[in-house]
Amino acid sequence: MKNPTAAMLVIGDEILSGRTRDSNMHHLAVQLNAHGIDLKEARVVSDDTAAIVAAVRALAGAYDHVFTSGGIGPTHDDITADAIAEAFGVGIGVRDDAKAVLLGFLEARGAEATPARLRMARIPDGATLIDNPISAAPGFTLQNVHVCAGVPRIFEAMVASVLSTIVLGEPMLSQSFRVDLPEGDIAAPLADLAARFPELSIGSYPFNKDGVSGANIVVRGHDGAAVNEVMVELGHLFAEATS
Amino acid sequence: MKNPTAAMLVIGDEILSGRTRDSNMHHLAVQLNAHGIDLKEARVVSDDTAAIVAAVRALAGAYDHVFTSGGIGPTHDDITADAIAEAFGVGIGVRDDAKAVLLGFLEARGAEATPARLRMARIPDGATLIDNPISAAPGFTLQNVHVCAGVPRIFEAMVASVLSTIVLGEPMLSQSFRVDLPEGDIAAPLADLAARFPELSIGSYPFNKDGVSGANIVVRGHDGAAVNEVMVELGHLFAEATS
Repeated sequence: MKNPTAAMLVIGDEILSGRTRDSNMHHLAVQLNAHGIDLKEARVVSDDTAAIVAAVRALAGAYDHVFTSGGIGPTHDDITADAIAEAFGVGIGVRDDAKAVLLGFLEARGAEATPARLRMARIPDGATLIDNPISAAPGFTLQNVHVCAGVPRIFEAMVASVLSTIVLGEPMLSQSFRVDLPEGDIAAPLADLAARFPELSIGSYPFNKDGVSGANIVVRGHDGAAVNEVMVELGHLFAEATS
Repeated sequence: MKNPTAAMLVIGDEILSGRTRDSNMHHLAVQLNAHGIDLKEARVVSDDTAAIVAAVRALAGAYDHVFTSGGIGPTHDDITADAIAEAFGVGIGVRDDAKAVLLGFLEARGAEATPARLRMARIPDGATLIDNPISAAPGFTLQNVHVCAGVPRIFEAMVASVLSTIVLGEPMLSQSFRVDLPEGDIAAPLADLAARFPELSIGSYPFNKDGVSGANIVVRGHDGAAVNEVMVELGHLFAEATS
């Protein structure tokens, strides 16, 4: 069985201007990896309808799942829900279930149900809601696109909620082996290993720390026995250069 | 004059598997913003030739500049240079100038010029070299694509080098205004402001800190007088909700 594939779409000028450092991509990568879903691609686009529509169409067509983050708040620059509806050619409007959730939350806090806030109950036709345990305004899933908030705490809760409802794959097994030799010295034996174990991903990540040039060799795959076999071979190959 | 546009392409399984947290995108975003180049899009793809080729072609065709990071080391998973050559339909081979730089560096350190290391002197035909002041192995610019190393210290040096050679635009001016009100309460006046100043980008970034729901309103544009005008209006609008 092949694992499901996924892509991420981060929406927001604030990432591309350097004002904010995105952390949702890393969180999603770790979560998907642990749940057996292969994250194949990520994109960041600005708060621009045409850019969002084009990216959603490209990614939804190429992968089993697309997770988006950002652009579903109450302000004028929050245009994600409308862009998703446009990408799939469906209508969008305030939906009773989303509105009820929102009104309950606002009422409990004595906050006014302004037209801006009610915009957050606008949901594309045919979507199912994603629970927001923190500030009520829901995300939604339309076809294979899971539309989540950008605020990290809310994004993380929404991802957990989506992961509890979709078909998962086999988690990737990963082991790491540190070699205190520059990459140029280990490249040839590593290439041999990679050719002999084509079902595994063998990556080399160089570092330079306290004057030592080395590399972390990361072996990833679904077959635990094969991963272990490579780890043993790495031990033999570089017995004198580990620490 | 319109500012030049740019995209970033991060190449590497380690980002998509969650093993490594990318920091190059944020660095590039800050640098481009300060140098008047509009970063319009970023993508992350895995160490996969077809994925790199497709992304390079799409981005190089859509923007004035593309910056890539990752995949130009000596190991088997470093396939960026070959993928870039393929994307532009040009040949690739060890080039004398790149080889000379590399050999000088290795000789000074008593390191062997292994075939793996010499792979780092493989440069697509027609490219110009980007200096690597840290570990010698050069990046390169082919047409409008600037191919940089993934190791942050080297990536940053290569970006600085590229920025010293290309045509820059007007830096974006940016001011930030904090309002201690939930976004739902400020959305309507903000939308009015945004409509009255279409040449500016007015973004709202909610936060929830120590029980206070608020938002940072970020006003960006090339026209400093207009940015200041909006800041004054924000001061009037939300005089009682600032801290």
